[in-house]
Amino acid sequence: MERLYGGVEGGATHSVALLLSEKGQVIAEASGPSTNQWLIGVEACAERINDIVNEAKKKGGISLDKPLHSLGLTLSGAEQNTAMSTLIKQLKSTYPHLSENYFISTDATGSIATATPHGGVVLISGTGSNCRLVNPDGSEHGCGGWGHLMGDEGSAYWIAHLAVKTVFDTMDKLEVSPHDIDYLKHAMFTYFQVSDRMGLLTHLYRNFDKSMFAGFCQKVAEGADQGDHLCQHIFKKAGEVLARHILAVLPSIQPALFQGPMGLPILCVGSVWRSWELLKEAFISTLAEGRKTQRAFSHFTLLKLKYSSAIGGASLGAKSVGQMLPLDYEQNVDSFFKYSFP
Amino acid sequence: MERLYGGVEGGATHSVALLLSEKGQVIAEASGPSTNQWLIGVEACAERINDIVNEAKKKGGISLDKPLHSLGLTLSGAEQNTAMSTLIKQLKSTYPHLSENYFISTDATGSIATATPHGGVVLISGTGSNCRLVNPDGSEHGCGGWGHLMGDEGSAYWIAHLAVKTVFDTMDKLEVSPHDIDYLKHAMFTYFQVSDRMGLLTHLYRNFDKSMFAGFCQKVAEGADQGDHLCQHIFKKAGEVLARHILAVLPSIQPALFQGPMGLPILCVGSVWRSWELLKEAFISTLAEGRKTQRAFSHFTLLKLKYSSAIGGASLGAKSVGQMLPLDYEQNVDSFFKYSFP
Repeated sequence: MERLYGGVEGGATHSVALLLSEKGQVIAEASGPSTNQWLIGVEACAERINDIVNEAKKKGGISLDKPLHSLGLTLSGAEQNTAMSTLIKQLKSTYPHLSENYFISTDATGSIATATPHGGVVLISGTGSNCRLVNPDGSEHGCGGWGHLMGDEGSAYWIAHLAVKTVFDTMDKLEVSPHDIDYLKHAMFTYFQVSDRMGLLTHLYRNFDKSMFAGFCQKVAEGADQGDHLCQHIFKKAGEVLARHILAVLPSIQPALFQGPMGLPILCVGSVWRSWELLKEAFISTLAEGRKTQRAFSHFTLLKLKYSSAIGGASLGAKSVGQMLPLDYEQNVDSFFKYSFP
Repeated sequence: MERLYGGVEGGATHSVALLLSEKGQVIAEASGPSTNQWLIGVEACAERINDIVNEAKKKGGISLDKPLHSLGLTLSGAEQNTAMSTLIKQLKSTYPHLSENYFISTDATGSIATATPHGGVVLISGTGSNCRLVNPDGSEHGCGGWGHLMGDEGSAYWIAHLAVKTVFDTMDKLEVSPHDIDYLKHAMFTYFQVSDRMGLLTHLYRNFDKSMFAGFCQKVAEGADQGDHLCQHIFKKAGEVLARHILAVLPSIQPALFQGPMGLPILCVGSVWRSWELLKEAFISTLAEGRKTQRAFSHFTLLKLKYSSAIGGASLGAKSVGQMLPLDYEQNVDSFFKYSFP
């Protein structure tokens, strides 16, 4: 029987597992809850990974006793090597039938590996944010990804926070917004179901839930769509700061990555990109600054994944044991915006 | 036997209880751990308040069965009325011999009541920050005090965070500091006992301890004292933003508060004020902006308390039951800086 290559995309809110054949075909798929070990601990994380992969094995009619040849995990928050080797040890010792080999990469690297075999830049803006460059030679450079207390610029959390902060500071007269806060103030009290700013502190401290807080971003987007100037201004700021992540890695990009037909491929991951029209103008004008120092940066293409980055995880896992899975990369992405600098 | 008036100053790290006579004399004093109910919950908070007041009663040779006539609590995080009435209910029902009457105020109001009978502005910069105006007629206006996720500008936490964030962003090239980061980078790894930025995330998330994080402010102050330009720059930013809290309440200040011999009395509370020399220049130049719109703002005096704001708490508690304690306010404060705008 042919070997199987598994991939797991583990996020802060949900996870996906895929099983691929040697030919790169998806055999089975399953989904489950968060597998972020920073949120749930290493033991629960390993257990959930085992559960979700077994679910996929069942769906594919594969015996739970038959280990995969490799399992590639692409996990948000997978930057710390020692923590990752602890997770692998836990998986090997507790679940010996799960997989023969393991490989762990960040969600950023896994996403890029799903979209292109030659590398690119991935710019994540979901609940949190992160930017990662994977060069054609495999070398990587990052910017951001430090979580809501030390960054997450341009993410849904950041947008929600900036919106709430602008209301607080304007009401305090600490820093008065140039735009009317009425829409956001009302939307904020409604979304968080509180009657004053004091009531909101519970959501920030005692009962803090990052995803729930970040969910307020949706209301900011709705306001912007309806023409509210402050909401539009906040998305403009988000577009700027997201572009600055690209500028930060620009000096480290190898020339070949600018020279393909797409120009620089920028893979956009996360729910905030659904508001691309609100980010667009500021994103482009900020990126244009990069032209001054990097002349090769003449055009770029924004891509989004059509399938789970568990595919890239499986591919990286296979690669780590010497097996190249022949993926149809063009099938995996949607080029939703192209731009050439004038 | 004469009536006794108690005061408790409850902070995030420690608490002080004082018992005062009708003549405003301190009869006994005791200290204990944090009584911030947001950190420890209402039951533990009530128990600690009872313990510390009983400790003071013992020291003053007062029977534990003899209730105080009033107990004035001045608590950080005491802004929310419903939570405060819950605390009073808990104290009355569980500890019937503690006090006949209760009054709760914020740490800001309690501090002002310790320094002056006519009101003033209190600017707190300790682990967190807050600004509160108490007008001669008793009306109050505030700015800030929303905790580290929504403000705390100019506090020790904010200074520590800005220092760490500047190192992160410069290393990421997201926003490069105009000053060398070497001192702060080294100081940061040493203080948090980590070898890289990833290691620091544990201190920000899983094992977050606001006081411990804020403690890094001390290292920033040491760097500034030794001539490090980035550390000096960060304290300059803190001086600016602290002054902006005063500017925020300036339009609400009643004229009489500018007209005393001290000019506007600004009560400075918290450990960050120990670095006044580092804040001074930016603080004054930012405050000078207030002159443009408020001509009566011609000079100001910075004060600090020589005694616990439990005195103000006791005084407010007594006032709430119709008793004015004759405090020697000048004894309670130290005027450490006076300034007249040119």
